[in-house]
Amino acid sequence: MAEDIAIPQGPNKAAIAVSRHVDQDRLWRRLMEMATHGATDNGGVNRQALSNEDIAARALLRSWGAELGLQASVDAIGNLFLRLPGKREDAAPILSGSHLDSQPCGGKFDGSYGVLAALEGVEAMRSAGIEPVRSVEIVAWTNEEGSRFAPGMMGSTVFAGARDLDRVLAVRGKDGTSVGEALARMLEVESDLPRRKLGVRPAAFIEAHIEQGPVLEAEGRIVGVVKGIAGKRVFGVSVTGEKGHAGTVPQRRRKDAMIAAARMVAAIDDALAAKGEDVKFTVGRFEVEPNAPSVIPSEVRFSIDLRHPDANSLTKLGDWIGNLCEENRRNCEVTVDELSHDPPLDFPEPMRAFIGASSTTLGIPSMEIYSGSGHDARHLHYLCPTGMIFVPSRGGISHSEEEWTEPDHLADGARTLTVVLATLATR
Amino acid sequence: MAEDIAIPQGPNKAAIAVSRHVDQDRLWRRLMEMATHGATDNGGVNRQALSNEDIAARALLRSWGAELGLQASVDAIGNLFLRLPGKREDAAPILSGSHLDSQPCGGKFDGSYGVLAALEGVEAMRSAGIEPVRSVEIVAWTNEEGSRFAPGMMGSTVFAGARDLDRVLAVRGKDGTSVGEALARMLEVESDLPRRKLGVRPAAFIEAHIEQGPVLEAEGRIVGVVKGIAGKRVFGVSVTGEKGHAGTVPQRRRKDAMIAAARMVAAIDDALAAKGEDVKFTVGRFEVEPNAPSVIPSEVRFSIDLRHPDANSLTKLGDWIGNLCEENRRNCEVTVDELSHDPPLDFPEPMRAFIGASSTTLGIPSMEIYSGSGHDARHLHYLCPTGMIFVPSRGGISHSEEEWTEPDHLADGARTLTVVLATLATR
Repeated sequence: MAEDIAIPQGPNKAAIAVSRHVDQDRLWRRLMEMATHGATDNGGVNRQALSNEDIAARALLRSWGAELGLQASVDAIGNLFLRLPGKREDAAPILSGSHLDSQPCGGKFDGSYGVLAALEGVEAMRSAGIEPVRSVEIVAWTNEEGSRFAPGMMGSTVFAGARDLDRVLAVRGKDGTSVGEALARMLEVESDLPRRKLGVRPAAFIEAHIEQGPVLEAEGRIVGVVKGIAGKRVFGVSVTGEKGHAGTVPQRRRKDAMIAAARMVAAIDDALAAKGEDVKFTVGRFEVEPNAPSVIPSEVRFSIDLRHPDANSLTKLGDWIGNLCEENRRNCEVTVDELSHDPPLDFPEPMRAFIGASSTTLGIPSMEIYSGSGHDARHLHYLCPTGMIFVPSRGGISHSEEEWTEPDHLADGARTLTVVLATLATR
Repeated sequence: MAEDIAIPQGPNKAAIAVSRHVDQDRLWRRLMEMATHGATDNGGVNRQALSNEDIAARALLRSWGAELGLQASVDAIGNLFLRLPGKREDAAPILSGSHLDSQPCGGKFDGSYGVLAALEGVEAMRSAGIEPVRSVEIVAWTNEEGSRFAPGMMGSTVFAGARDLDRVLAVRGKDGTSVGEALARMLEVESDLPRRKLGVRPAAFIEAHIEQGPVLEAEGRIVGVVKGIAGKRVFGVSVTGEKGHAGTVPQRRRKDAMIAAARMVAAIDDALAAKGEDVKFTVGRFEVEPNAPSVIPSEVRFSIDLRHPDANSLTKLGDWIGNLCEENRRNCEVTVDELSHDPPLDFPEPMRAFIGASSTTLGIPSMEIYSGSGHDARHLHYLCPTGMIFVPSRGGISHSEEEWTEPDHLADGARTLTVVLATLATR
């Protein structure tokens, strides 16, 4: 068991000096270059986990790491690490990063920002000529988004021991490929990388990320010190009816999976909308078989994403979903599988205070903010002292090609991160 | 303008003699061999229009026609004809057939039966040694099902002048291919075929088909003399919202195309279910963008297939759909496009009486029956005297791999068809 690190109340002077080496233009250039991998026609990114685009993005990150002399390594679930060695090679490292995979219609900043801000922090340390006591490691977690292979956060959950590696490798994507197959292909390309063990406990983990919501912009703050992460439950619903000819089967004799599924979605929306502003409910995926205009659908499969900041409410509302589906299934069959249940969490108060103080010392306006979206930091939280830094998202838009954050806001977030990392690493 | 043919009250003796040459085993063997093209693992057929499987099915039909010395030809929309020349080469032919394309999860009999029953009739004439006065033509209409390229009945509508060739050629399928491109590819393969003109008026058109509903089986009759075809309207609905992150956008600020579309479907189902047993309503296709579990859907496109045997009810109920969509769109945008509007029709009474008398003369129990499904005969009805012959569908199941008709029922339908064709062709 690694020793616990004491979280300081504020940044040290050496770290503040390091932050002056954060280069806004370099960070921006790297973000834009990273966004060429999987670039879409409308300025977004389609770089799904373990795809060719994802593999190319990792190669680019490695090339930047190599220029800085960082030590690259990979673990069994494909998490990619770049290490700046500290004087005490045996001490648990300070870990920072996020993910490089994107949604199918994602933006340039979700995930990439956290990885490249950490890289910027390490480059700033190098430029400032400081040699950290503890090693600093940049990480790109595998498959945070869960678009191609659901559910997401595969890299961080397996790293933290929250999910079993073999079960994750067996997950199959839409096209029938398994995570194991896609991962083996990626690791084959990266076979020159040394392999490291899963789950070695870091001294601390700090993740920078765009907010993906409207709060910082509305409040006029640049840095969000993340208080905690809303709880999330993900369900997969399968409705099974009976195929038939649209013109000949009388309505009352039908087993129409489409009508049943539409009624379930409408009923869940009715029920949850009445439960207050804290509930968030999304049916993002919905697939119909055989999906032909004149055939009564025999099968519908859809996803339910339910979020709530309160653990009891999340449990209660989530448990209700099965009943609502059952009540609206008519003469079809329905099964509701829970794919994940992540309770809400609060990051440690000393870590939040330290990040807030670091931002304030740099003169960057900050505030505490709750995260409605899940992040890899959720799973690291149970492993080591963890914190998150948000920067504003224009219009609160994310998981969209229109995602945008101002270059100077990105740089201010990276400066805050750098001060935090450098302080922790030089103690 | 071709002269009108007089529909006889009953069959002639020569035609009855011809019907004894209908061979149940040969018909069955051909149906099973045809079903190998696009065969699915579960005993069904996936042979969508203008696919490789469709092209192979047509080649098989042509090979059987060639064995009988029939003259093959094709028109500009790809309808395939096999001609048994009559003594009066200039007289309008007697036309009979159906389609060879299938639903994605279709059965072995829908469409193929009508084509192969007509082939059986022509072979029976050859075996009986009669030479018809009028030519008899077997036809396989292009893209009846409309699964790959919607809406269906492309071959018969273009032939009958109900749709414009160029507009149909411009239709694009799910994979982005246009009808024109797919058709050009098929006609290239079949470039040895003489090209014939569109819309040359036949003297009569008779289509044999499986019932695709439960009535004949329930009533214990083998032949259904089709009284008419229910009216059908097809709509395409597009709901446009706004993409967003499932965890961060507050419910009240969302423009969720999925929720809006589900409410539309549920509302239409509520409204139409109250309008009696004659209404049939199906949402067979439903597609979501970007279709990822943690992204609020920005776009949903779905189909509505509405049928009713009464013209006024069909108009009224169909016109209501736009309002129901509008009322449930919330803060999304919705557009409702009507893709087709086929009013209900009744086939001419003399033709129905003639088919019924032919069946009775052969000792085959028949009844008049209404068709809930649309058929190519709908469009021929406006061009020439037209009739249809149904045979039972086990359990009323169709557009399904479980589609089934007993071999002796198929043969009895083919005998009735043969008597009808031979009587009309020898007058």
